[in-house]
Amino acid sequence: MPLTANDPKRITWLDVPHNSDFPIQNIPFGVFLTRDDVITIGTRIGNTAIDLGALHQLGYFKDIELTDDIFLQDSLNDFIADGRKTWRLVRNRISDLFLKGNDELRKNKEHCKEVLFRLDEIEMQLPVDVGDYTDFYASKEHATNVGSLFRDPENALLPNWLHIPIGYHGRSSSIIPSGTAVRRPVGQTKPGDDGVPGFGPSKLLDFELEMAFITTATNDLGKRVPIKEAEENIFGLVLFNDWSARDIQAWEYVPLGPFLGKSFASTISPWIVTLDALQPFRTKSPKQDPTPLPYLQQPDNMAYDIKLQAAIKPQGGIETVVCNSNFKYMYWSMAQQLTHHTVNGCNVRSGDMMGSGTISGPTEDSYGSMLELTWKGTKPITLSDGGERKFINDGDTVIMRAHSEKNGIRIGFGECKGKVLPAN
Amino acid sequence: MPLTANDPKRITWLDVPHNSDFPIQNIPFGVFLTRDDVITIGTRIGNTAIDLGALHQLGYFKDIELTDDIFLQDSLNDFIADGRKTWRLVRNRISDLFLKGNDELRKNKEHCKEVLFRLDEIEMQLPVDVGDYTDFYASKEHATNVGSLFRDPENALLPNWLHIPIGYHGRSSSIIPSGTAVRRPVGQTKPGDDGVPGFGPSKLLDFELEMAFITTATNDLGKRVPIKEAEENIFGLVLFNDWSARDIQAWEYVPLGPFLGKSFASTISPWIVTLDALQPFRTKSPKQDPTPLPYLQQPDNMAYDIKLQAAIKPQGGIETVVCNSNFKYMYWSMAQQLTHHTVNGCNVRSGDMMGSGTISGPTEDSYGSMLELTWKGTKPITLSDGGERKFINDGDTVIMRAHSEKNGIRIGFGECKGKVLPAN
Repeated sequence: MPLTANDPKRITWLDVPHNSDFPIQNIPFGVFLTRDDVITIGTRIGNTAIDLGALHQLGYFKDIELTDDIFLQDSLNDFIADGRKTWRLVRNRISDLFLKGNDELRKNKEHCKEVLFRLDEIEMQLPVDVGDYTDFYASKEHATNVGSLFRDPENALLPNWLHIPIGYHGRSSSIIPSGTAVRRPVGQTKPGDDGVPGFGPSKLLDFELEMAFITTATNDLGKRVPIKEAEENIFGLVLFNDWSARDIQAWEYVPLGPFLGKSFASTISPWIVTLDALQPFRTKSPKQDPTPLPYLQQPDNMAYDIKLQAAIKPQGGIETVVCNSNFKYMYWSMAQQLTHHTVNGCNVRSGDMMGSGTISGPTEDSYGSMLELTWKGTKPITLSDGGERKFINDGDTVIMRAHSEKNGIRIGFGECKGKVLPAN
Repeated sequence: MPLTANDPKRITWLDVPHNSDFPIQNIPFGVFLTRDDVITIGTRIGNTAIDLGALHQLGYFKDIELTDDIFLQDSLNDFIADGRKTWRLVRNRISDLFLKGNDELRKNKEHCKEVLFRLDEIEMQLPVDVGDYTDFYASKEHATNVGSLFRDPENALLPNWLHIPIGYHGRSSSIIPSGTAVRRPVGQTKPGDDGVPGFGPSKLLDFELEMAFITTATNDLGKRVPIKEAEENIFGLVLFNDWSARDIQAWEYVPLGPFLGKSFASTISPWIVTLDALQPFRTKSPKQDPTPLPYLQQPDNMAYDIKLQAAIKPQGGIETVVCNSNFKYMYWSMAQQLTHHTVNGCNVRSGDMMGSGTISGPTEDSYGSMLELTWKGTKPITLSDGGERKFINDGDTVIMRAHSEKNGIRIGFGECKGKVLPAN
């Protein structure tokens, strides 16, 4: 199945602003409420949202085998379960339909009115109903930083880290779409000298700059996914802010891992950018030493060059970019993560989400959390408006962005943002 | 709303064998496939399964406000979301309908034929679609045993344990109903002298004797559940075998907790016994010292006296009971667990499941896992047929049972069982 939608020469008849994350080569998938309060699956080109449910009802996908209601749903799970061949057919068809010179839809003003929306006419929803969400810990720089801060800089990486894509189960219920406000969590913290644990709003609220991939139904319980087939089962990626309350986490996480320090909110960007759209940005993976066990061995181009950014915008203030990182720094690839996840026979379903873990790069300005950027609060960041931050304040909005760029084509994710509200 | 269904004097016109787990005072809820391959919500009295979908269609719930399809579903999630008042009305109505002397249904042979099934005519399914599953670690004896085995017997409990109901997120996709076979998991284990991790079928496959409670939708994101209201949000309980591969777990779990050592399978009993049905068995909670923080303080009768048992039945052999424990040993109550889970604003949805963690008692024969019973394999168990077990062998079936008994009334859970198949 050719990836015609990726052709860099393609131009659309829709308006696409300069430097848009959403040229005709992107064609991401999302779920939105329309101006008529209908929920539908859609895509986006430039600043135009496209109602795929309406397009399908009008017959524009008649040559593709699809159930009638596949796009008239409140999640992409069923469409994703249809598999990669269908995803490609649909994405290529959308690309053709909006290609400059194709008047099939363009000249039908009635249809255009039914199908096309300005962004201010829609409200983005969660794109998938996440059955299970797993978070990995796959950036070597991040694991090294955390190990140095909390354990021993000389032995920052734990013995298993270079052998296993370490991960843990996260909370699905509190995954929210970009733009949803985040309430500062309350919880227990380490006891003081009186031996009584602290209790109250978290004082060390942090972001974690991550990406997450969304899977199709990959395997039945008891079976596993060979690494060669892993990417076939990945639908696409979103930007992901794994909000973390460091003080709650520090007290609760031994021995069973992060819990309430994470489960109060996890923000994702609403458009799933397909792995197909990201193929031109495939790049060399970091060298793995020691060589992983055979079931995790892979070709050496399993990373993706995606520029990542995190910014803080104080209440009523201006934005300061605090971190520039890149998805290619990931030590363990998505394919390795998914393969490892199923090696024990654990079944993965359509719509499951797997986070990368914080993506920190090699330089101090590429660290993906305030914990690392301010080195546990010892080196506060000065914001553009003069304010200082060790962690995230009430009223701050954390904004993440991501895009790939090559040969004049930019494929981006839009924003993943959330404003912090004071604790209840 | 009176709990008339709990009246110990009630007798049903259905046959109920002596010592049945399912007298008319139980009335649990489950989901099954009927002989006509219809999926429905049902209950059970004695050895008769009752199709609530059919009962509702025939008008037997006309005095209760219920949507038409509330029981014609493949999960109890929507019914549970209707809340405790509805659960009680429905359970009381079922009790009335099957009460000796009530001929309303009994004399209508056509209706009885539509509604009543022998157990061999139905196939039990998962009772709920579990959105999120959390496992706690709430037995002090279990935490002490594990701490003694793997860390330091002098300081077996970690500093946070007496302050926090420690828990972690588990995997929902691999929760399976009793009777489903369990494939021995494959995975990485600790490196030997060559520094290369082991890889292959787990050699230390274990069960964990647990109970789990199922919640209704308790709170919106950012809100929390006060401890006084916690039990109102608990629909009922199931028996739960949290299968564990100790060798995989030991290598992977630092620092983010259990992952593939658990996520290959989690077996639950198919009938949810309501918290209402268990009210007569409420009992004194263990004394908590130090006193928990105010948000976790509760009356002193928040435990439930439920006898628990685990047995091993080798392939073609006879069964040996290896453990007798009790749910009342739990240090942290269900109410404390649910309250703690939401203190950070984490939202809990209808159908979510919260496991207790292994329930070990004070005596060596009441430990809830092979790890503890055989003290990490150093004291093998001799089975009735002469075989020895340190952990679970291929072909073994692990069978768990639970019931409460008082004043001649026995409320039970049936079996939670699974047979171990050799690794792929």
